[in-house]
Amino acid sequence: MSAATRLRRLDEEREIIVLERSSEVSFANCGLPYHVSGVIADREALSLQSPERLAARFRIDARVRHEAVAIDRAAKTVTVRRLDDGATAEIGYDELVLSPGAAPRRLANAAADAPVRTLRTLDDLDRILTDLDDVPPAGSVVVVGGGFIGIEMADNLHRRGLDVALVQRGTHLLAELDEEMASPIADHLLGLGVDVRLGGAVAAVGVDHVLLDDGGRLPAALVIAAIGVTPEASLAADAGLELGASGGIAVDAFHRTSDPSIFAIGDAAEKREAIDGSGTLATLAGLANRHGRAVADAIAGGATPARPALGTSIVDAAGLTAASVGWSERVARRRGREVRVIHTHPFSHASYYPGAVPLSMKLVVDAHDDRILGAQVVGTDGVDKRIDVIATAMSVGLAASALADLELAYAPQYGSAKDPINMLGYVARNLASGEDRVIQWHELDRELAAGAVLVDVRAEAQLAEGRIPGAQWIPVESLRERHAEFTGRRIVVQCRVGQGAHTAARLLSELGHDVVNLDGGYLTWRDGRRARALAELPLAA
Amino acid sequence: MSAATRLRRLDEEREIIVLERSSEVSFANCGLPYHVSGVIADREALSLQSPERLAARFRIDARVRHEAVAIDRAAKTVTVRRLDDGATAEIGYDELVLSPGAAPRRLANAAADAPVRTLRTLDDLDRILTDLDDVPPAGSVVVVGGGFIGIEMADNLHRRGLDVALVQRGTHLLAELDEEMASPIADHLLGLGVDVRLGGAVAAVGVDHVLLDDGGRLPAALVIAAIGVTPEASLAADAGLELGASGGIAVDAFHRTSDPSIFAIGDAAEKREAIDGSGTLATLAGLANRHGRAVADAIAGGATPARPALGTSIVDAAGLTAASVGWSERVARRRGREVRVIHTHPFSHASYYPGAVPLSMKLVVDAHDDRILGAQVVGTDGVDKRIDVIATAMSVGLAASALADLELAYAPQYGSAKDPINMLGYVARNLASGEDRVIQWHELDRELAAGAVLVDVRAEAQLAEGRIPGAQWIPVESLRERHAEFTGRRIVVQCRVGQGAHTAARLLSELGHDVVNLDGGYLTWRDGRRARALAELPLAA
Repeated sequence: MSAATRLRRLDEEREIIVLERSSEVSFANCGLPYHVSGVIADREALSLQSPERLAARFRIDARVRHEAVAIDRAAKTVTVRRLDDGATAEIGYDELVLSPGAAPRRLANAAADAPVRTLRTLDDLDRILTDLDDVPPAGSVVVVGGGFIGIEMADNLHRRGLDVALVQRGTHLLAELDEEMASPIADHLLGLGVDVRLGGAVAAVGVDHVLLDDGGRLPAALVIAAIGVTPEASLAADAGLELGASGGIAVDAFHRTSDPSIFAIGDAAEKREAIDGSGTLATLAGLANRHGRAVADAIAGGATPARPALGTSIVDAAGLTAASVGWSERVARRRGREVRVIHTHPFSHASYYPGAVPLSMKLVVDAHDDRILGAQVVGTDGVDKRIDVIATAMSVGLAASALADLELAYAPQYGSAKDPINMLGYVARNLASGEDRVIQWHELDRELAAGAVLVDVRAEAQLAEGRIPGAQWIPVESLRERHAEFTGRRIVVQCRVGQGAHTAARLLSELGHDVVNLDGGYLTWRDGRRARALAELPLAA
Repeated sequence: MSAATRLRRLDEEREIIVLERSSEVSFANCGLPYHVSGVIADREALSLQSPERLAARFRIDARVRHEAVAIDRAAKTVTVRRLDDGATAEIGYDELVLSPGAAPRRLANAAADAPVRTLRTLDDLDRILTDLDDVPPAGSVVVVGGGFIGIEMADNLHRRGLDVALVQRGTHLLAELDEEMASPIADHLLGLGVDVRLGGAVAAVGVDHVLLDDGGRLPAALVIAAIGVTPEASLAADAGLELGASGGIAVDAFHRTSDPSIFAIGDAAEKREAIDGSGTLATLAGLANRHGRAVADAIAGGATPARPALGTSIVDAAGLTAASVGWSERVARRRGREVRVIHTHPFSHASYYPGAVPLSMKLVVDAHDDRILGAQVVGTDGVDKRIDVIATAMSVGLAASALADLELAYAPQYGSAKDPINMLGYVARNLASGEDRVIQWHELDRELAAGAVLVDVRAEAQLAEGRIPGAQWIPVESLRERHAEFTGRRIVVQCRVGQGAHTAARLLSELGHDVVNLDGGYLTWRDGRRARALAELPLAA
């Protein structure tokens, strides 16, 4: 619809026909899960456009329940099936825009009569709501898949009062995040009473249960499969259009396929990834909307090339927000990058003003050129702001150290005089210059095994939160007196979040010691340990 | 304190002495107004550091109630007066960092016994609280000055239950904003019962009242003067250091004054402005903190030059948030720039998800090179995020049109698939390409006087909000039938916020008409008209 309405604004004369297989020409797909709980009470709020309005306002001929079933590129025609009566017809085109989206993956091992549903369209939502009418209050449902849709569905089914299990094949929820960043989300859902099962592959789905391959048996009056999507590329492939390695329709920077009269956009089209230019699906609403608009410009003759995709994303996990942009540490390492990793735990705004809440932040930086490769933020208030600022910085190639110099708005209700974003920049700068040296939470056991001493420099009042086994407690203020105890040994310093330990590490370094800071402090170590425990994995990598 | 603690982290050996005239070595000055109302209930929360802690943690010798009264640059000494007993002494220095801040301006025409207070330090706060003990419940106080501090004090005195008048000499509150952006703030305060007086110069202050030069008489058991600050540059000037045109101490990009052994930072030092490099005071906490850290780097030998100041700022005006960065339209025009101006009124997040609230946004763009010169955002939720994204974009010189391509995090709780920031970019791009042509709210009367016809293209249900005199109502959907009525006339199209009118303008332009869109639609015109009414000025510029 972005393409069609934009094209009309650019050209009053052109004939514009929209073919849509479902019964809705434009709907709020990101809002669908929230109608399950009633957070979005009015189903009509999810329906954004109608063929009547498109005709009246934009002179667009939008035909719902019409499926494009074949393309004849030589004749420049599309074969269209009218779903209500099965009749087919040919429609000619000068330019054809493919925007068929992506189809939910199906669970491989479900019985034919198993109550498995996927969620993509308003029609799907209506079916799920009908099914839920037959589920008793507090009945059991299983959501398979711990990504955005899986978490949102688990949240909203739980809000509806149902007994919800969330099964995730991977070691943590939200594959976009690294494990230690994701573990608070699993903990939060567990705390609400959602039965989160990590590393849980589905062995079978029966009429009233889900069997896991570890032998677990989850009762299930309804199963929601939210295990990802595949681009709807078959129409394009059948017409001989090239596909990319991702399985999406291959396009150039102007969204043109291998046939110059055919364009492809949205979840069906392959995008370029911002960091290394590789092909990616990046099935995100923002990109789909932008490319829809851009393809109209391309057709009308005034296009600018598409920028590669950073993949900025965010999800509300039952009140806890998780956001990410670019690469995770895991992806960066898998792709062979040497990285610097930064964890911080700042407050959302000045701690002296009421309502400040903790954030958990992670920055992944290319060790060779200080480029920001990715970021993750988890918390409640202020998560979206910080990920958007980092996404903006990444889109213009700002170095990690340069985050220190961003002039962000400060009053105590909104941030800090040194905003959490600036602090990431300071840490990045200290790491780039070698002023600070750090180890990661999963490297601690190796350091200790190699003979390093772990010094916990927190204030006494902070110790109650928990202690890392083997740590010796010496507050920063006592280090000047006691540092000689460690002469000749490598020292790992550790505080609650990494900041006091930075002061301690500087002091010990100035006093001639070999010292490293445990990045992110006790909190990151705790989150990492918890992630490994949830996934039933050992702490050391 | 940023400078002192950073320097200690860089150098364990150096002797570091801090001289502080007040009794607090480091306090949350941006939080002071909120203790007046009890929003920040605990006074101790405002005190961030103590000499004892600085000594124990950083081996810093911090001396409160010690005033530096003279500098002997040749001898490299500072004369220090101990305020408790008046004793003076000389302290030698290798490097001297001046960070004396800025002093509140005094009301010129107050009687000697008038109860006028200013707010800068915790000591000032304590005096105001003592004074307030003598003000009866619901007694009258007058705040003079409609900037950040004035608005925050008016808000918090009002929350305390007092009868508050807010007197602003200028035509609108918050000089950083343009008048039409600021008028909702005055309206909001008026709605809460604060007696906002715009264009109100103080003629005299007596023991129990304030007289305005329009003859108004405001009862006042206490008067808060918040009419700006002047840099505390006299110590530097007396020592023969150069001052800048702004009155601040002149420094280079490494915060070095005209004496290479003396540095100056904070509100007393002049900064470079980001847009045209001119000298500015930019008395903002973020810059002060950053420069404090940077001066330590400079002294220790590892500095990077200071970036020029954008002046990003934000204020909570009794629940309504106003933020700005860079230049206002007024400043840009005064400095001779030809600008494109964009007003939008988006929702804070997807309107189909509960809790979406309106934002009012303004972007000021250089007409020659599409550079962003400034932005203003007013609303409740999501204001800080949008100003921070624009500030980040400005800091790297991103073109206004490029805002369209930023990949911002979208889920319906946080934003829109086309975020308000992206929409600003689309409008900027349409203006840059000439696809869209606009006039501003204050240009409408001139257009109509010159014979243009004003066409209101809103949906019928939107008309109840108000109508612009002289507008003819034709909804977008009827324009294709009726456009011939305007053949040969210039057309101004207008909707609620500018977006439907963009569709109408494109349509009419495609049909061969001379058409311009009223930027920001009815809402911006209404805010502009209201601003002029509040200031008792005519609507036409």
